[in-house]
Amino acid sequence: MSIKEIDRYIESHLDESISELSVLCRQPSVAAQNLGIEVCANMVAESLQARGFDVKILPTGGSPVVFGERKGSNNATLIVYDHYDVQPPEPLDLWESPPFELTIRNGRMYARGVADNKGNFVERLHAIDAILETEGELPCNVKFIVEGEEEIGSVHLEPFFKEHREMLSGDICLWEVGGVDHTNTPIQMVGLRGICYVELRVKTANQDVHSGTGGSIFPNAAWRLVWALSSLKDQDENILLPDYYDDVVPPTDREKALLAQQPEMMAYYKEKYGLKNFLKGIDDELELAIQAVYQPTCTICGLNSGYQGKGSKTVLPAEASAKVDFRLVPNQTPEKVLEKLRAHLDSHGFEDIEIVNLGGNPPAKTDPDHPAVKLAVEAAKDVYEKPTRVIPMIGGSGPNYMFQAYLGVPIISSGAGDSESGAHAPNESISLDLYIKGAKHFTRILKLMHDYK
Amino acid sequence: MSIKEIDRYIESHLDESISELSVLCRQPSVAAQNLGIEVCANMVAESLQARGFDVKILPTGGSPVVFGERKGSNNATLIVYDHYDVQPPEPLDLWESPPFELTIRNGRMYARGVADNKGNFVERLHAIDAILETEGELPCNVKFIVEGEEEIGSVHLEPFFKEHREMLSGDICLWEVGGVDHTNTPIQMVGLRGICYVELRVKTANQDVHSGTGGSIFPNAAWRLVWALSSLKDQDENILLPDYYDDVVPPTDREKALLAQQPEMMAYYKEKYGLKNFLKGIDDELELAIQAVYQPTCTICGLNSGYQGKGSKTVLPAEASAKVDFRLVPNQTPEKVLEKLRAHLDSHGFEDIEIVNLGGNPPAKTDPDHPAVKLAVEAAKDVYEKPTRVIPMIGGSGPNYMFQAYLGVPIISSGAGDSESGAHAPNESISLDLYIKGAKHFTRILKLMHDYK
Repeated sequence: MSIKEIDRYIESHLDESISELSVLCRQPSVAAQNLGIEVCANMVAESLQARGFDVKILPTGGSPVVFGERKGSNNATLIVYDHYDVQPPEPLDLWESPPFELTIRNGRMYARGVADNKGNFVERLHAIDAILETEGELPCNVKFIVEGEEEIGSVHLEPFFKEHREMLSGDICLWEVGGVDHTNTPIQMVGLRGICYVELRVKTANQDVHSGTGGSIFPNAAWRLVWALSSLKDQDENILLPDYYDDVVPPTDREKALLAQQPEMMAYYKEKYGLKNFLKGIDDELELAIQAVYQPTCTICGLNSGYQGKGSKTVLPAEASAKVDFRLVPNQTPEKVLEKLRAHLDSHGFEDIEIVNLGGNPPAKTDPDHPAVKLAVEAAKDVYEKPTRVIPMIGGSGPNYMFQAYLGVPIISSGAGDSESGAHAPNESISLDLYIKGAKHFTRILKLMHDYK
Repeated sequence: MSIKEIDRYIESHLDESISELSVLCRQPSVAAQNLGIEVCANMVAESLQARGFDVKILPTGGSPVVFGERKGSNNATLIVYDHYDVQPPEPLDLWESPPFELTIRNGRMYARGVADNKGNFVERLHAIDAILETEGELPCNVKFIVEGEEEIGSVHLEPFFKEHREMLSGDICLWEVGGVDHTNTPIQMVGLRGICYVELRVKTANQDVHSGTGGSIFPNAAWRLVWALSSLKDQDENILLPDYYDDVVPPTDREKALLAQQPEMMAYYKEKYGLKNFLKGIDDELELAIQAVYQPTCTICGLNSGYQGKGSKTVLPAEASAKVDFRLVPNQTPEKVLEKLRAHLDSHGFEDIEIVNLGGNPPAKTDPDHPAVKLAVEAAKDVYEKPTRVIPMIGGSGPNYMFQAYLGVPIISSGAGDSESGAHAPNESISLDLYIKGAKHFTRILKLMHDYK
């Protein structure tokens, strides 16, 4: 059977695939809020079973992992990593259509999780349907690992990998996300930063107090938090944890050369996000590219204290909290960051600030010249208008280090994402065109896997 | 008619007065949220009309002022200042009974506004009923000024005073709140700090961004806010606005002597609020009393940015805001504070921080030895178990300076408040015992007014 027949199936059965995606998006599955997780895991399991996969729903101590395996016509094994959990949909008032109702507008599908990463999961099922319908069997073994805690740092995945190392083994891992950049160039993202996500909490009294009574004489939780946070990073963006940069490994020359191939981003970012300028006075494209991904971060993701409603309330807050994420670059680890953070707070007089560890993982990268990366680039050739660009490291995070540490596999990417996808933001979306292209790319990866081993 | 008969009326008609208070508390009237204001103003007007007052509901540009006047048997005029607006009830989950449903538990009445200051208003009506029922007329002229924006800084009251100076004139002003301290000693509060309440806002992008994308290179609204706030006050509680303390007038010897009569507060505060210690290492009772009210403050009342839900969301917030109140001591003014705040932010590189003025007023005080204060102390003698203590200045704020600047009247206090009242906090309450005592105190103030002029 020819690839044309497979492509024709993908195009002519698009509506069925969108229906399936629509049902999956309708099911909220917010790991951070423990919302709809079990139900969504069952839906994922059923959809794999419907394609003849041998499926297990495996406990992890948190959200279960759905594992599905189907043999192919040779011995090479592609591991497909997806996740069924999504980011919280808030702030709700910024969504133009309900977050859990897949809505098509101007050639794009909108829903929480449609880009990250339910869309890719269903697109991959659609590609598998196309191959099975036209060829009757898969060209290689395929193992799906679909977890439910990616958006909260894959907090239970490492022991799961330790326990099931044998079952999970394979030759290449296909990552959950992928697609094109804002110039419509397909990309292979072969490295991810690590992350250490914490909540900082402080409580200074057993109740809020009238600010007239306590303002001059009582400790104020909001002030304690503000002072503690301001001690973590100076206004020049230097993170002030002790010896924080000691473990940071700069990019190799090869990685820099790959980053130099990146399209111009400055004007694009300024326009898209309404930015006036970049941090640290960066005004060079390569410098921006390097800083964006080879520097660790300390980002306040949320602040919460006292009265936040309309107008004024004269209250002295008893409690305050901040969500903070640290993006990590080779060779940083979340464990070390937690240690340094505690030491820093203690040594700066902030013993009263509690650190709640909300999860994390170290960074990891695949050699950009690995044969698996070449395979993924080759597979994209006749699908996209432009040749693939290999990106040695992206700013985001994920549990890819586990695949490398426990399974020893290189990581490649594929998917329907683009620069408008807005993963984690309101109005998350993917384009119908890239949904089809992503499915086609995946069929070609499967076909090339046939001769990989 | 004897005062005993009046007291008997107050005691025997308590249930009717509580019913009236219950109806008033059931009506939300949150100025900060523009909730129920007009309806509540009408209720206040009707309740004054029912006591034979000549009532006007007067526009101010914001919440209307209810003005009611009734002639008495001599020419002295007592101005009674009350407000029908209340603080927002949030956080709702900390209320043990619904905030807008007056609930009696263990001899206390609970509801938003019951202490601040609907309870005092209805208690005063109750006292007027007692006098009118037993004596048929009031011993002096009484003018009620009941405004609806006290909780948001009386933002429209000053032009109202300018316009209606003649109509509002009188001899003594009875303040909205009053009562006893935590040792059950009746108090006369003759000075109030001023206030300048602002919201600081910053916006760094047109939308939230994935923290993996922007963390190293995009400005972060939450960080901008944290840095700007931390520049306003150091960890030793020094407010860093330019020349901020230049206008601060220290207490007089007489004021210090009055503060020295204050009961011990340190152990009390520690226990009540679960505090470990006080700011600035204060460990002396008089020093605490002075610092509590004769120092200006800069209090963060609220912080708001990004994700505040359960668990983690890896977002870089585009917007952040803080509510901040500055309590002012003689001779500071809110206008000067606003000027200094803008100058400070600009000179520290925070031109991007917007200041929203949410209202304010200057501090003001009555001479603690004024004949009017003596009258109020005398009126309390046979009502309370202990002699009255005169407090030269309290930590809270209110528009008392307007009464002094435009009407030139001294200010005295009376009411049902005590140390458990929790004005502005969840479970705001007053005791039934002090409600009766407050009414009795008010009848005696009215009686003594007969010979004031």
